[in-house]
Amino acid sequence: MSEPLAAATGPGRPRDAEVDRKALRAAVELYAELGWAKFTLDAVARRAGIGKAAIYRRWPTRERLITEALEQALVLPAIAIDTGSLREDLLELARSAMGYYLGPYGLAGLRLRVEAHACPELLAGLAAGAQRSRVLEARAVVRRAIARGELGERASPTLILDTLLGALLNHVLATPEDLRAEMTARSEQYVEDVTAFVLTAATSIYPGSSPDRAASEV
Amino acid sequence: MSEPLAAATGPGRPRDAEVDRKALRAAVELYAELGWAKFTLDAVARRAGIGKAAIYRRWPTRERLITEALEQALVLPAIAIDTGSLREDLLELARSAMGYYLGPYGLAGLRLRVEAHACPELLAGLAAGAQRSRVLEARAVVRRAIARGELGERASPTLILDTLLGALLNHVLATPEDLRAEMTARSEQYVEDVTAFVLTAATSIYPGSSPDRAASEV
Repeated sequence: MSEPLAAATGPGRPRDAEVDRKALRAAVELYAELGWAKFTLDAVARRAGIGKAAIYRRWPTRERLITEALEQALVLPAIAIDTGSLREDLLELARSAMGYYLGPYGLAGLRLRVEAHACPELLAGLAAGAQRSRVLEARAVVRRAIARGELGERASPTLILDTLLGALLNHVLATPEDLRAEMTARSEQYVEDVTAFVLTAATSIYPGSSPDRAASEV
Repeated sequence: MSEPLAAATGPGRPRDAEVDRKALRAAVELYAELGWAKFTLDAVARRAGIGKAAIYRRWPTRERLITEALEQALVLPAIAIDTGSLREDLLELARSAMGYYLGPYGLAGLRLRVEAHACPELLAGLAAGAQRSRVLEARAVVRRAIARGELGERASPTLILDTLLGALLNHVLATPEDLRAEMTARSEQYVEDVTAFVLTAATSIYPGSSPDRAASEV
């Protein structure tokens, strides 16, 4: 599809994709800063430095724009964690979650989870979608550990994943802005510590048929 | 101080305190639903069903109102948890946090933690204040367990509290609206399960000089 406006006003070699990318990124940033109540197409046009007409032509309503922007930013590609070891799988899962919380879209994702409860009509669906692939992947990690005998059959994916991912979430949320750089610098160590902590509880409470395997990896 | 407007328009036996209470509650509710970007004194007056003049006379700016409203709603009274046992202390701490997340101010508190990072100038201070008493209390729980010999001296309050409180936070945030009633009904069982999980990891990784005491309580 040709895009006359972008071609006429954009810098360098303007393309549809470049205008889209700027608008979607501006939408995620504004949403992270202001939330849904204050989210407008005009504000996105200003932040992205592109014409209102270009925004309105692509996304006639703010609902359409936020849906596309957040789906693109927050629905993670499946990273297909499957190292063959519970410890390594949990470590990759925790590392990926921490990178996400600390990255450019982490704030938008957190806000979406809070606002999904405040204004469920639009945002709840988005929040559920953004979370689904991660939750399925995380549950698969626990199921495979049970199948390998690293954990017992009654092992609770919910408990293991709430403690692992919740600890990282709480850590990021509880750190004041002025300590954020320090927290970020130490995040890999923290990820390893939380993973070891959760693995210890999981293998103690839900011992598998080959406990030595899991224990030797702590 | 007399309050002519409230006396003229309020029902029953209107008092200053009743107008204040309505306004502060409406402020917390609106903040939870809309966030700081959309928070206005006019909207609070409408929600509370009291005159704008009464609001503006008490709180000349939205900053003054949100500060008082959130401090009153979110700064928890110290509950002075000190049962003499790590397990019981953690259980009380978790129960109190879960009650808070599920209660009327939980959503406002979560939003404040997210927005403290998005607009730090005003909200970061509030968020820090709202959290301080809980964090101090939680750290004291771990310190006393170390002093009693239930945990070793190197026990990390951060790790123990991030996993305990973060698990509850993640659990509440990850539950869709349509499963919220069921999650709430099962919350006491979940609190006990998370506490036992975290206690197992803590006493395994940081064994104290009287490990039998902690272990016998699991």
